[in-house]
Amino acid sequence: MQNIDIGLVGVGKIGRDQHLPALIDSRDFQLVASADPSARLDGVPGYDSLAALLDARPELTAVAICTPTSLRYAQARLALEHGRHVLLEKPPGATLSEVEDLIELAERQGCTLFAAWHSRFAPAVAQARDWLSDKTITRVEIDWREDVRVWHPGQAWIWEPAGMGVFDPGINALSIATEILPRAFFLRDARLWVPSDCQAPIAARLDFRDALATPIVADFDFRQPGPPIWSIHVEAEAGRLSLLQGGCRLELDGQCLLDAEEREYPGLYARFAELIRQGRSDVDLAPLRHVADACLSAWREPTEPFIE
Amino acid sequence: MQNIDIGLVGVGKIGRDQHLPALIDSRDFQLVASADPSARLDGVPGYDSLAALLDARPELTAVAICTPTSLRYAQARLALEHGRHVLLEKPPGATLSEVEDLIELAERQGCTLFAAWHSRFAPAVAQARDWLSDKTITRVEIDWREDVRVWHPGQAWIWEPAGMGVFDPGINALSIATEILPRAFFLRDARLWVPSDCQAPIAARLDFRDALATPIVADFDFRQPGPPIWSIHVEAEAGRLSLLQGGCRLELDGQCLLDAEEREYPGLYARFAELIRQGRSDVDLAPLRHVADACLSAWREPTEPFIE
Repeated sequence: MQNIDIGLVGVGKIGRDQHLPALIDSRDFQLVASADPSARLDGVPGYDSLAALLDARPELTAVAICTPTSLRYAQARLALEHGRHVLLEKPPGATLSEVEDLIELAERQGCTLFAAWHSRFAPAVAQARDWLSDKTITRVEIDWREDVRVWHPGQAWIWEPAGMGVFDPGINALSIATEILPRAFFLRDARLWVPSDCQAPIAARLDFRDALATPIVADFDFRQPGPPIWSIHVEAEAGRLSLLQGGCRLELDGQCLLDAEEREYPGLYARFAELIRQGRSDVDLAPLRHVADACLSAWREPTEPFIE
Repeated sequence: MQNIDIGLVGVGKIGRDQHLPALIDSRDFQLVASADPSARLDGVPGYDSLAALLDARPELTAVAICTPTSLRYAQARLALEHGRHVLLEKPPGATLSEVEDLIELAERQGCTLFAAWHSRFAPAVAQARDWLSDKTITRVEIDWREDVRVWHPGQAWIWEPAGMGVFDPGINALSIATEILPRAFFLRDARLWVPSDCQAPIAARLDFRDALATPIVADFDFRQPGPPIWSIHVEAEAGRLSLLQGGCRLELDGQCLLDAEEREYPGLYARFAELIRQGRSDVDLAPLRHVADACLSAWREPTEPFIE
């Protein structure tokens, strides 16, 4: 099968650390160019903007957009207007409304739009989803805690509203939970703790229910000392499933079923190629919608200033 | 045509002031019962809960839900599960996610679900929409200002997160703007002013753009002295359209085209009857999505405590 010529828009940390190696190893894609006003990739032709890239490279079929969130809507719109398939890094937009508009545009243009929730491609996620699909679930506990100073050093943008604070990692947990749980769930109560000198929360407690009133509670915290905890525990009548280490390890009643290395982006690009070949889009807004719902309905409590 | 037997769920201020008179005058509906744990309507059989109402009145085809927002999801779900058509007062839910679930359920059940944005039924809204449909728009200004002490006396709930503060009236403006403007629009920047003793904003400035980069700016303010201002001004190449007094008055270049009395709820119920007869639903989430987007991405500034 012929390779898909792709351009990388936004040469930042996630572009270099994740997208570049996945694209180099991909059997589906060939990275032909990048676009960024201030950064280049060794050995890859670089352009200052997406517009320049689209002009110079008519053979380009697809772009992956991993610029800061606030820039993505205009870039995705431009690429779709030029008939290119688009992969959006998570979250797929700064607002829900702009992503809704992209969904419509992609449909009109006959292009693939893929909102890439990378955590859904962690090795044990699919097996957890399959096991849970026919189980009676009684309680879900989501624990997502990490030290912001270790995982986001010097990233002042994370404390701005669009940075989403602890929802930046928390939305990964929500992207897994919405993938593996067999029923949709809704916020009943939410609390956010916001440092008095910041706009975005440093911790959140979200209390969801599904249509059967199953409690689903999530604790997100940026103040975790020591190693991170990225866990989802599901109590079912048939046993207790634990998805650990961000989806790399799966346990059932304490017995390890799977323990594999993190390899999210190769799977993510394989899915993008599959969508393009099938002429379909995949834009699940549920994780971002839950964060917006939390911001809409949460009680906010000020907490001590954040000093890096 | 046969009347549709309907039950009113939630006998509060909006139920008495708006739904009751509209239903009494309706040629489409017959109000057969109400449900409320602590209030009754004169001459209308009353039940303590929706469950009791559904049990006692199998002939009931539809319900109108105007209870506090946090109760609506469970009630709408129950009514839909019992095969009843459902009208939801605005906003249609406490979160976007729960309304998405109701949309799916209504479809599965073959029932009509109607998210009733009452301001869209103000007399001049349809004419404004028709005039704007083929115009080149250069700027939109939405001004929605009222004195909270006059319009929401003693309503402490409005300052809780789910009360939405100034978005409680502001969402009416957004429901009109999303109806009359020919293109979707998205938030670029938002500021909320939140009293230091409250959870919800007392004022908001929202800066939207549409896909053609047309500026659409909204100012919502609860601190307006004197008469309220409920206006939307649209600058188009063909002229300046002003929708005033919450949609009761329409001006074009300062000339009055229409000035009529407020009569929103009769139109709203006529629409609900039409949807039921056509076997369709009408749930536009755009107004609530814009509020959620604003809460997700706004800069919040504390302001002086609110003393009623």
